[in-house]
Amino acid sequence: MTMPIEPLDVKQLWTLVATVRERAPLVHNITNFVVMNNTANVLLALGASPAMVHSLDEVEDFVAMSQALVVNIGTLDSQQIAASKLAAMRAGTAGIPWILDPVGAGATPYRLAAARALTRLGPSVIRGNGSEILTLAQHAGQGRGVDSTQGSETALGAARLLAIDTGSVVAVTGAVDYVTDGARVVAIENGHPLMTRVTGLGCSATAVIGALLAVTPDAFTATTAALAVFGVAGELAAAQARGPGSLQVALLDVLYELTHSDFAQRLKLEKS
Amino acid sequence: MTMPIEPLDVKQLWTLVATVRERAPLVHNITNFVVMNNTANVLLALGASPAMVHSLDEVEDFVAMSQALVVNIGTLDSQQIAASKLAAMRAGTAGIPWILDPVGAGATPYRLAAARALTRLGPSVIRGNGSEILTLAQHAGQGRGVDSTQGSETALGAARLLAIDTGSVVAVTGAVDYVTDGARVVAIENGHPLMTRVTGLGCSATAVIGALLAVTPDAFTATTAALAVFGVAGELAAAQARGPGSLQVALLDVLYELTHSDFAQRLKLEKS
Amino acid sequence: MTMPIEPLDVKQLWTLVATVRERAPLVHNITNFVVMNNTANVLLALGASPAMVHSLDEVEDFVAMSQALVVNIGTLDSQQIAASKLAAMRAGTAGIPWILDPVGAGATPYRLAAARALTRLGPSVIRGNGSEILTLAQHAGQGRGVDSTQGSETALGAARLLAIDTGSVVAVTGAVDYVTDGARVVAIENGHPLMTRVTGLGCSATAVIGALLAVTPDAFTATTAALAVFGVAGELAAAQARGPGSLQVALLDVLYELTHSDFAQRLKLEKS
Repeated sequence: MTMPIEPLDVKQLWTLVATVRERAPLVHNITNFVVMNNTANVLLALGASPAMVHSLDEVEDFVAMSQALVVNIGTLDSQQIAASKLAAMRAGTAGIPWILDPVGAGATPYRLAAARALTRLGPSVIRGNGSEILTLAQHAGQGRGVDSTQGSETALGAARLLAIDTGSVVAVTGAVDYVTDGARVVAIENGHPLMTRVTGLGCSATAVIGALLAVTPDAFTATTAALAVFGVAGELAAAQARGPGSLQVALLDVLYELTHSDFAQRLKLEKS
Repeated sequence: MTMPIEPLDVKQLWTLVATVRERAPLVHNITNFVVMNNTANVLLALGASPAMVHSLDEVEDFVAMSQALVVNIGTLDSQQIAASKLAAMRAGTAGIPWILDPVGAGATPYRLAAARALTRLGPSVIRGNGSEILTLAQHAGQGRGVDSTQGSETALGAARLLAIDTGSVVAVTGAVDYVTDGARVVAIENGHPLMTRVTGLGCSATAVIGALLAVTPDAFTATTAALAVFGVAGELAAAQARGPGSLQVALLDVLYELTHSDFAQRLKLEKS
Repeated sequence: MTMPIEPLDVKQLWTLVATVRERAPLVHNITNFVVMNNTANVLLALGASPAMVHSLDEVEDFVAMSQALVVNIGTLDSQQIAASKLAAMRAGTAGIPWILDPVGAGATPYRLAAARALTRLGPSVIRGNGSEILTLAQHAGQGRGVDSTQGSETALGAARLLAIDTGSVVAVTGAVDYVTDGARVVAIENGHPLMTRVTGLGCSATAVIGALLAVTPDAFTATTAALAVFGVAGELAAAQARGPGSLQVALLDVLYELTHSDFAQRLKLEKS
């Protein structure tokens, strides 16, 4: 039931980025130890105000004054899961948008249980790679470690089912990124293969979605805009980089200096 | 009661940096997960020998053989607070200088209680942004997340009161950095706005103060020298950088290669 | 009882690197918070698939599907030690190779006890600096913080004794890196002094050994190849770097793009 593809309004997407730069929304992150520094830097480069706060004793207070919450289970443990649940529940009651990154959801029973429990708390958006989304949608796909063994296109059907089942917008990222609310699907073909050689760029994409959720109630557009801007930035950064070390550095510079015109020229987005 | 401004002895400040390079003092850090890597790299680039040690089972032993202690509550939890208290108390009895960075002190009641409790343990130096220092001095200023909503100049009065109240040297950093012991005030006008787009550079400044505390009993001069050298280095790094990614890389290179002559030429310092 | 030095088969060493690039083995890391990001990036740049997993509730499941395990006690606490023991024991019964990095082993009694307990669990390889290896071999050498005060050559005798005592391959790294199984000794003279000004490059070397252990049952050759490739990459990166910041970035780029020919030209390796 794919509909003919037509260009989205690029200006509408860029406006969300411009609004983040203008408002510097406070984005509360409960995330993994591998990417904390990078995630904070990506959010700062984009123009948001990040905070990494995970103590059981303050996550509820902190989320209540934030404009968005990012929950990432990368290096989960029992404290972090509990803190994530508390923060997600408070976000829910306070009407604060939040996004779940179910890192390595299928890798262990413990991780799967945590990802499922958080999914049930009603995230505005779920972003994962092919394996993670297939796992959450109870399909046959199985992750291997925390990297995906399934292309994003394989998981698109699962993403739609998961979106329908949960009411969340679902993003499945890979060579092509897909965003769906169950009915609509947008495909973004930006990005660069070298990005898979830098740790945590999926987590960074999740954080960028979080920043854009902070400035609009339209989670579908926020997710699309975030993956579009992150993909374009990654592509521009890869063009300047010699390898994964310089790519990571360039990505922050590009996110900081990216213009509407660069964005519009590079964006490869189709909807169905 | 501001006194006429006159130049400080630049050579005296630089001598502390040269001494760190020569002695490579062991600096014990109990710090947050966002900045651990950067803080260690800043200290290594400066010439100190950093260690990140926070287990309740070894912080007392570890601080006892260190030349200075840095306590930063960025990603605090109950274990980290307890470890910080144990280490600070041992530092106190052993005569080891220590510095407190009360990250986001006013953001939540939990964070405020932790910052206040640590303040009462008698740090040699407290370094915060405007919001944090206003909060600790029980003024009206309130932080928003972990970034400051108050300029450093607004907090100068609070910084003096806090210094008098605690006996600590207090540094409030921002567009201008101020160092005060309650009576004396030094203002440093180095640094660059792009530094606010890199996570944890305030935490890095705190660590640099820690390194300089390790080589002199004069906390006021150590703090002044640290903020001066960090501000000059940041300014030189920003001049080479395209954005926040390259700034962070350049900052480590500049700290490593900075000379007395670069420092003396760039330093903008006034005392009152 | 040193035997005349003769060249090793460079091609045999490089083949292990090529195999990692081809197979992208899953390397499970239980490591410290300072280096998690860098370690993941070093492994990705090399071509391996890293995962940082330390929860007591999943380490056993996770190690069972990995091709190698890296245990590093840098920022240890009681949970991390327990997780490391559980993972190491499961690796042992499942025949999965693992490497121990006893960071700062002699710094505190707590750290020494943890390092000794893990050593007794039979790692395939132990890699430390001079102070750490001397400490583990119960020699007189004492660390200061987490940096070494003992040259690697001073610790070579201890390394041989430790290898004989434990059955592990032992690597002691420094200006010269030594690898021994008690009988054989290989010395690698690559690397660059600037590498000591970047935090966690010893931890990175350990992780590279872990990646190579994942593709061969020959721990002695894997360790030799890993330190050789890491030393050559560090040397090439230092030649491009202005200071420690740019060295760290260049190191990832070089690991990613290193060729057999660069490796063969630069390698300075002797065996006895």
